[in-house]
Amino acid sequence: MERIEHRACSGGWQDVYRHRSEVLGCEMNFAIYLPPQAAARKLPVLYWLSGLTCNEQNFITKAGAQRYAAEHGIILVAPDTSPRGDEVADAEGYDLGKGAGFYLNATEQPWAKHYRMHDYIVDELPALIEANFPATGARGISGHSMGGHGALVVALRNPGRYRSVSAFSPIVAPSQVPWGEKAFTAYLGEDRSTWLQWDASELVALASERLPLLVDQGDADDFLGGQLQPQRLQAACEVVGHPIELRMQPGYDHSYYFIASFIGDHIAHHAEAL
Amino acid sequence: MERIEHRACSGGWQDVYRHRSEVLGCEMNFAIYLPPQAAARKLPVLYWLSGLTCNEQNFITKAGAQRYAAEHGIILVAPDTSPRGDEVADAEGYDLGKGAGFYLNATEQPWAKHYRMHDYIVDELPALIEANFPATGARGISGHSMGGHGALVVALRNPGRYRSVSAFSPIVAPSQVPWGEKAFTAYLGEDRSTWLQWDASELVALASERLPLLVDQGDADDFLGGQLQPQRLQAACEVVGHPIELRMQPGYDHSYYFIASFIGDHIAHHAEAL
Repeated sequence: MERIEHRACSGGWQDVYRHRSEVLGCEMNFAIYLPPQAAARKLPVLYWLSGLTCNEQNFITKAGAQRYAAEHGIILVAPDTSPRGDEVADAEGYDLGKGAGFYLNATEQPWAKHYRMHDYIVDELPALIEANFPATGARGISGHSMGGHGALVVALRNPGRYRSVSAFSPIVAPSQVPWGEKAFTAYLGEDRSTWLQWDASELVALASERLPLLVDQGDADDFLGGQLQPQRLQAACEVVGHPIELRMQPGYDHSYYFIASFIGDHIAHHAEAL
Repeated sequence: MERIEHRACSGGWQDVYRHRSEVLGCEMNFAIYLPPQAAARKLPVLYWLSGLTCNEQNFITKAGAQRYAAEHGIILVAPDTSPRGDEVADAEGYDLGKGAGFYLNATEQPWAKHYRMHDYIVDELPALIEANFPATGARGISGHSMGGHGALVVALRNPGRYRSVSAFSPIVAPSQVPWGEKAFTAYLGEDRSTWLQWDASELVALASERLPLLVDQGDADDFLGGQLQPQRLQAACEVVGHPIELRMQPGYDHSYYFIASFIGDHIAHHAEAL
């Protein structure tokens, strides 16, 4: 593991590391923000999963989350959104392949070899963080768009592993919308029954743990009707009585201006659980 | 004037406009953040001048300033850093020509026709803002690196025009350091006596107004010893008794992580004066 960026920020350190991922079979970058409290004691960790086209940089440069993490004493970890490198399969278009890992374990070729982002996010990365940084085993997870899907899915699939979950503008029903249909067909194959285990609106019905879901969605988001459709998740939660707070934010779009406007609320939400 | 971006942010609107600048003889973009209070009343304006290579986007996407502007009820205006367009002279290198206007009025060819950023920032842009937005005539000015130089210089050259001034990592003595020597030689010519009216460490001795200077500087900034040298400004202030608060921030570098860490302090400083 090699530290490739190290910058003072809000009293702590915004670092980026590069490491060899055994799960993904490639070199990966992740960003970690260590708030000032990390110099003295172990802290809980909030994992942030970014959206399509992003890497580990977007969240740390644009969300303004560090000041809130410093306020609450929480470590932030922002991984990349897919495996990377010349040996990793890719596709034309921003919504499949590199930058578009969808936080699942692919079963189809040519993706199955490297595209195992679920296992990387849930197992390998936390093990690395907890072995090398002043991190307790208390974990929260959040993300944006494809990363909001990722946060909801990994939390719902892994009861007990996360104490809190939230999402900005998540793809809540990937089996039902174009982004998800394209990605799932490629990564998981044509048999839609295999898709359901990667779809938050399906998983909520099976959840053995009633982890409350905090979801923020801008009502001026260009992707709201076509790709996001948060009411599908809300409806699924209502059927089984899963706690959800879906906040429709008037005027907000899909950008980091939206995330920056409400990330303080989300970090406070996670801090309460962590 | 055409609005080319319009995004909800921290309860207000982060917009970008394009307009024809008569002073610069080209089309220019500027960013304006209108906090929620702007819907009800006129507000003071803080102008932000960015550094080398930047345009109107850097500050609005990376500084996280909007939440503080919303807290204090201040409009933020972030212009571009030079004239733009195919007809505008340029040079090899990031530190001369486009993206490197140095907030002065050039006298030498081929620069004199378009490079009049001082007059644009001090006169044309505020007139445009105050005519078209809910802005009072109360103005503050701040900036980073080359823009810190710009903020200090335009405030010191124009007594009564700004109520407050601050700077991050400013080039305080451009006549004495490589960035400034290169730019001033090109824009102003070989006669160094003409440079002094664009050098904050010289101007402070002539200032008829004792506007307090707030300066933040990271002590891990790679440009500190070679290009910035804030002690030159502090020494010049001490000679004439000009009020200055120079804060050396341990561990911080030249990046937006540094700006994001202390922009809240600066906006509070300006809010008090505005």
